[in-house]
Amino acid sequence: MKINATILTIGDEILIGQIVDTNSAFIAKQLNTIGIEVEEILSVKDEFQTIMEGFGRGISKADLVIVTGGLGPTKDDKTKAALCKFLGCDLVREEKVIQNIMRLFEERGYKRELNNLNQDQALIPEKSTFIQNKFGTAPCLWTKIDDKIIINLPGVPFEMKGLMRDEIIPRLKNQFKSDEIVHRDILISGIPESDLAILIEDWENQLPEFIHLAYLPNRTSIDLRFTASGENRNDLENIIQQEIDSLKLIAGEYIVAENSGNIVEVLKDILLQKKLTISTAESCTGGSVASLLTSISGSSTYFVGSVVSYATHVKTTVLGVNPSIINQFSVVSEEVAMQMSKGVLKVLNSSLAVSTTGVAGPTRGEDSQEIGTCWIAVTNGNTTLTKKFFYPYLDREDFIKIISNNALNLVVQFVKENY
Amino acid sequence: MKINATILTIGDEILIGQIVDTNSAFIAKQLNTIGIEVEEILSVKDEFQTIMEGFGRGISKADLVIVTGGLGPTKDDKTKAALCKFLGCDLVREEKVIQNIMRLFEERGYKRELNNLNQDQALIPEKSTFIQNKFGTAPCLWTKIDDKIIINLPGVPFEMKGLMRDEIIPRLKNQFKSDEIVHRDILISGIPESDLAILIEDWENQLPEFIHLAYLPNRTSIDLRFTASGENRNDLENIIQQEIDSLKLIAGEYIVAENSGNIVEVLKDILLQKKLTISTAESCTGGSVASLLTSISGSSTYFVGSVVSYATHVKTTVLGVNPSIINQFSVVSEEVAMQMSKGVLKVLNSSLAVSTTGVAGPTRGEDSQEIGTCWIAVTNGNTTLTKKFFYPYLDREDFIKIISNNALNLVVQFVKENY
Repeated sequence: MKINATILTIGDEILIGQIVDTNSAFIAKQLNTIGIEVEEILSVKDEFQTIMEGFGRGISKADLVIVTGGLGPTKDDKTKAALCKFLGCDLVREEKVIQNIMRLFEERGYKRELNNLNQDQALIPEKSTFIQNKFGTAPCLWTKIDDKIIINLPGVPFEMKGLMRDEIIPRLKNQFKSDEIVHRDILISGIPESDLAILIEDWENQLPEFIHLAYLPNRTSIDLRFTASGENRNDLENIIQQEIDSLKLIAGEYIVAENSGNIVEVLKDILLQKKLTISTAESCTGGSVASLLTSISGSSTYFVGSVVSYATHVKTTVLGVNPSIINQFSVVSEEVAMQMSKGVLKVLNSSLAVSTTGVAGPTRGEDSQEIGTCWIAVTNGNTTLTKKFFYPYLDREDFIKIISNNALNLVVQFVKENY
Repeated sequence: MKINATILTIGDEILIGQIVDTNSAFIAKQLNTIGIEVEEILSVKDEFQTIMEGFGRGISKADLVIVTGGLGPTKDDKTKAALCKFLGCDLVREEKVIQNIMRLFEERGYKRELNNLNQDQALIPEKSTFIQNKFGTAPCLWTKIDDKIIINLPGVPFEMKGLMRDEIIPRLKNQFKSDEIVHRDILISGIPESDLAILIEDWENQLPEFIHLAYLPNRTSIDLRFTASGENRNDLENIIQQEIDSLKLIAGEYIVAENSGNIVEVLKDILLQKKLTISTAESCTGGSVASLLTSISGSSTYFVGSVVSYATHVKTTVLGVNPSIINQFSVVSEEVAMQMSKGVLKVLNSSLAVSTTGVAGPTRGEDSQEIGTCWIAVTNGNTTLTKKFFYPYLDREDFIKIISNNALNLVVQFVKENY
């Protein structure tokens, strides 16, 4: 049975671009794990009428509407009132919510009685049931409308995540016997998207109908994503693997990673398999490579540490880069990248090291190199691989992101070539 | 004159939660700078019918519809066909687009003729005009429908950003004389959201109607956001400043920063003003504090560098933490945090240093401390400020994010208290 959902996120801060709506991606991913597909994501303002319309649209499009935001105690929180109007019911007081708020206040060291606004958080639409929120003061609301469900969650990410994980997903899993959804990504590099599409056209056309293929182009690579849904997860995974095996006969030379949802995970697997450790020496990426590496659990097994050498004197004193090399070639050069990688390898005592030095812009800094230039080096002490990148069009944020990603990709390439 | 917009983002990868839709926030922010308000953001799948409906909904809700995604050369790109059907017109070939693609291929070192899929990228809906995309192969489409406009942009973030910045915003600014929109955030700490709302209720009620106030609660603080729109930016900014001045008389003790859109910017201002430099020694945050500090331009003036001491031996060898202190108090302790901060201050020769040591989870690692525990220390060599945090409910990602943010906040507090 196919079950689908829509996501409705409420909050002016999303519409003015002050925050990126990360809640929706988290919710969509969680729903996918139990076979629920998301039809659309709608973000609207903190406006009574607009929120009501959002409920109506959500319910008309799917079995399930997951809503975040607007449950707080202040004036700009209008979701509960809009839900009442939508349902045509009143608010009733739930004592258990009061107890939860008092527990939270005690935990946070607030020594005072609940005020009116706190009290109001215990008001629940008559037609809804509530789920206690141990992470915050606003309870989660669960409303059945005929055979459909509206679920209201707070917008604060860690509260929403805790409730999704601990309360909503288990309940939904119990309630619906949904089809399984399987995603798998492979990473392609060295061929333009359009050439790839032509090269694999016949193979793509023979894919079974329940497998959907998507091309996700990046700056220097393409993620090819398989999505399949059906009753049995194992069967789906096996069929996708078979299709990838036959794809390898056609385009094997371009496949960089066979399970590439995330380059950080790819690198983790390869480092653990080869029993290698890694450190980073970062200039233009400013700690972002280290941050990526440590973003996943278990990274302490292979990630030793990092020296972010933003100021030039850190390159010479801590990493031992030769000042005359800097003078001769400039800070952003192949030679400095090499010495940085070798320096951090030695200082932090890892088996591999990767370094970055470049000009992120928008100003040139102390270097004479053009904005968008970057050198990356990977070393194990004996062999060193270097590569130059030049992205003059990227803004600072994207430049750092893409260079950091390239650094991890270069490490994968280095390990494949040398181990 | 008030001009409004809706944003339509197209792509299965958004609906399965594989990527976070960062495009919408960027577009919304850019539109806000020229006084255009975003009414809603809708994300839909790569489905012909759904995309067509998206155009219809967008046009019915606002003057302007900004669309991203689905313009690529492969089968899963359906936006152009859906737009043609929506407009009731055919595709026509634009030679100039071919020339742009050939230029890009040359730049990227592809030595071959354009294939059919590349050729198809030069097909433009008859009723649209195109804007050359110097960042990629898919041109931007600009379609007038009576007094409304649909603008189609590629979904690849750096292409979309370049086009918005260089082409779309200047054209829209030229076309519409829109009201100015001003946002201003102040950072409040040390008071629950509900208490704050009651404390400032009278002040809030007397705010002029064109100023909108929003409460954005974080884990340990609240962002209070002012939004005002009107004809003159200066007037709006002055009126908001006056309101903040009168708010200070009521709640001044809780105002941590008077311009807090971003703690990184707040710290930048304060460090530049006091002529201080900073370095970081990071364990559980894994480079994320350094990464935040270097996320903004000009950070090389005050950010010296960082030692990410993930492995314990880096704490002792590079940062000079005493091994017996680690044995006695464990890696996650006030004593180790203090020694880490003092160590990096000395090694990197900065005027201030901040350190983090904690257990991000989901596993405990080599330490016996509970998951969610973290110590942060800030030092200038003479005085050291330490603080313990305990967030057992946070997942790894949020834990790192919130601890990094707390570290920057603690530095701001330290500077305010000591300089």
